[in-house]
Amino acid sequence: MRSKTLGSAGEFGFIRDLRTRLATRDPFVRLGAGDDAAVLRPAPGRDLVFTTDMMVEGRHFDLKTITPWQLGAKCMAVNLSDCAAMGAEPKAAVVSLGAPKTFPYKNLMSFCDGLVGWGRQFGCNVVGGDTVGSEKLVVNVAMLGEVEKGKALRRDAARVGDILFVTGTLGDSGAGLHSLRHPGKKAKEARPLLHQRHLLPVPRCTVGRSLVRTGLSKCAIDVSDGLSSEVNHLCEESGVGAEIHAEAVPVSPALSYYCQELRLDTLKFALDGGEDYELLFTAPLRRLKEVLRRVPGGTGVAITPIGRIVPRSRGVRLVDPQGRRRPLVPGGFDHFAR
Amino acid sequence: MRSKTLGSAGEFGFIRDLRTRLATRDPFVRLGAGDDAAVLRPAPGRDLVFTTDMMVEGRHFDLKTITPWQLGAKCMAVNLSDCAAMGAEPKAAVVSLGAPKTFPYKNLMSFCDGLVGWGRQFGCNVVGGDTVGSEKLVVNVAMLGEVEKGKALRRDAARVGDILFVTGTLGDSGAGLHSLRHPGKKAKEARPLLHQRHLLPVPRCTVGRSLVRTGLSKCAIDVSDGLSSEVNHLCEESGVGAEIHAEAVPVSPALSYYCQELRLDTLKFALDGGEDYELLFTAPLRRLKEVLRRVPGGTGVAITPIGRIVPRSRGVRLVDPQGRRRPLVPGGFDHFAR
Repeated sequence: MRSKTLGSAGEFGFIRDLRTRLATRDPFVRLGAGDDAAVLRPAPGRDLVFTTDMMVEGRHFDLKTITPWQLGAKCMAVNLSDCAAMGAEPKAAVVSLGAPKTFPYKNLMSFCDGLVGWGRQFGCNVVGGDTVGSEKLVVNVAMLGEVEKGKALRRDAARVGDILFVTGTLGDSGAGLHSLRHPGKKAKEARPLLHQRHLLPVPRCTVGRSLVRTGLSKCAIDVSDGLSSEVNHLCEESGVGAEIHAEAVPVSPALSYYCQELRLDTLKFALDGGEDYELLFTAPLRRLKEVLRRVPGGTGVAITPIGRIVPRSRGVRLVDPQGRRRPLVPGGFDHFAR
Repeated sequence: MRSKTLGSAGEFGFIRDLRTRLATRDPFVRLGAGDDAAVLRPAPGRDLVFTTDMMVEGRHFDLKTITPWQLGAKCMAVNLSDCAAMGAEPKAAVVSLGAPKTFPYKNLMSFCDGLVGWGRQFGCNVVGGDTVGSEKLVVNVAMLGEVEKGKALRRDAARVGDILFVTGTLGDSGAGLHSLRHPGKKAKEARPLLHQRHLLPVPRCTVGRSLVRTGLSKCAIDVSDGLSSEVNHLCEESGVGAEIHAEAVPVSPALSYYCQELRLDTLKFALDGGEDYELLFTAPLRRLKEVLRRVPGGTGVAITPIGRIVPRSRGVRLVDPQGRRRPLVPGGFDHFAR
């Protein structure tokens, strides 16, 4: 018996199977998938944030190393992370999938479970989508979030004297990708953790919401292309400079161990490794203690001060433990540069 | 001198060049492209509609027959048409573009001008996006529209006794595609018009809005996969049947002439040809005259009654001029069936 594929089920069979999985009681969703568009009812007095991300097979993921469930979850996670960086509550997503008609139906359903399941963990429903034929797998998610009116966190709101903070640890995802591409026996205890960080990022939605609710920060960006790139974006948009203290950049024991065993540069992963999906944010110096006390509260996510905002004329620099400064240039991912 | 490409400009160079083109004074857009997400401010007392569509090179378009400007415009048009089918005012779009790094920068800017320019004709701003590397060109647009609370037009709102209406003429786009694929000397006067209908669809936004404002219809769908498919979708969702009168289905003189000269079946194009982006909608019989008088008012778009809604048990049928009935089966495009 031939296995069921996307081609044999057909576009409309697939859509039928999907609708039951997407059912929700969220009053935000007035009409879910199945019509020309979903109908949503925003809460009064709130702004919306609107974002999108595309992931292409062979460029962003390799089906040999990521499961269909993880892929679905990751496609949601990168958009959830954008909502987190705006301080918004993720609410609804539409998903486009380009896939070969030979794509196994079982994998497709598993992919959808990843999308829907990981979205729901963060309060976000899948409310519609589009399926098209394509040689390589390509996934696009567009997401809407809600935030209190005028309170969205922006990249251009950093001020001289602010402290720069980062959530969690940096570089794990980049090292996870490195490990997936270079399998081997060394540091084998650390690898699963690094793989996990690469394959199933946990967006920092609770931290983003906490920054808005406490009013402690007005400025955030998510670290998707590496800290060195993101801090430069933030400074460019805000018209400021920054000093990052190298020894303050938080790294996990797994990353340190992996880099030590494989003789790799830990700091390079932490600064330039992409896809961490941590948040980089600023707050005034006088609120430093309050940030450290109130923001993590109940989120289980560490918050680390890593530097400060300085006048633009001083540029974006990295300070080493001896106090020497060197320019911190963007070392992250440019999709067209490679 | 080598020409500028997407690769040589870089992702961030491209984004910089784009931001000036996207500037808008629409108060709906609080923060446009350039941050982790756009920030939007919905009007109080309105619902949102949310839709997405993906188009893949080689499957949905051929760069040998469509210009970059037209491609941008068409990617917007298919989403604008979804908004039209919900009776919503299109407001904001995010666009993802997967492209080879060798893609000429000039073509890219022209594509963006098509997106932005055609969107603006219908009141919709591009507020963000994502660019990724990809072997083939792939474009995804996700769009938000606004509609009066609880007034979105739905596929499941057709009632027995309603009249079925369609805007404009059907089959032109399908014949346009046929003509692009079969160049020749026959019917050469009709071809440019059919090509135009295929390459640059005009979404029926004003008609959709008129249906909501006048309250004359609660049920609409856009004809993207062919009338035969769409009428079946509408009937399935509404739990009804339908009778379509073959001789009432509106076709353009260009389509008739093209089919006559090439000995093709005009009705088949009108019923099964995809990508018309006309609206199919219903209204109670007693409001027939009112629909014909009030809906087109000022839109310049013809409205034609083509049949009526009957009990589900009678199925979806086509009635020929002699009064003979045959089942009208979906003949449109299933992206995975071919």
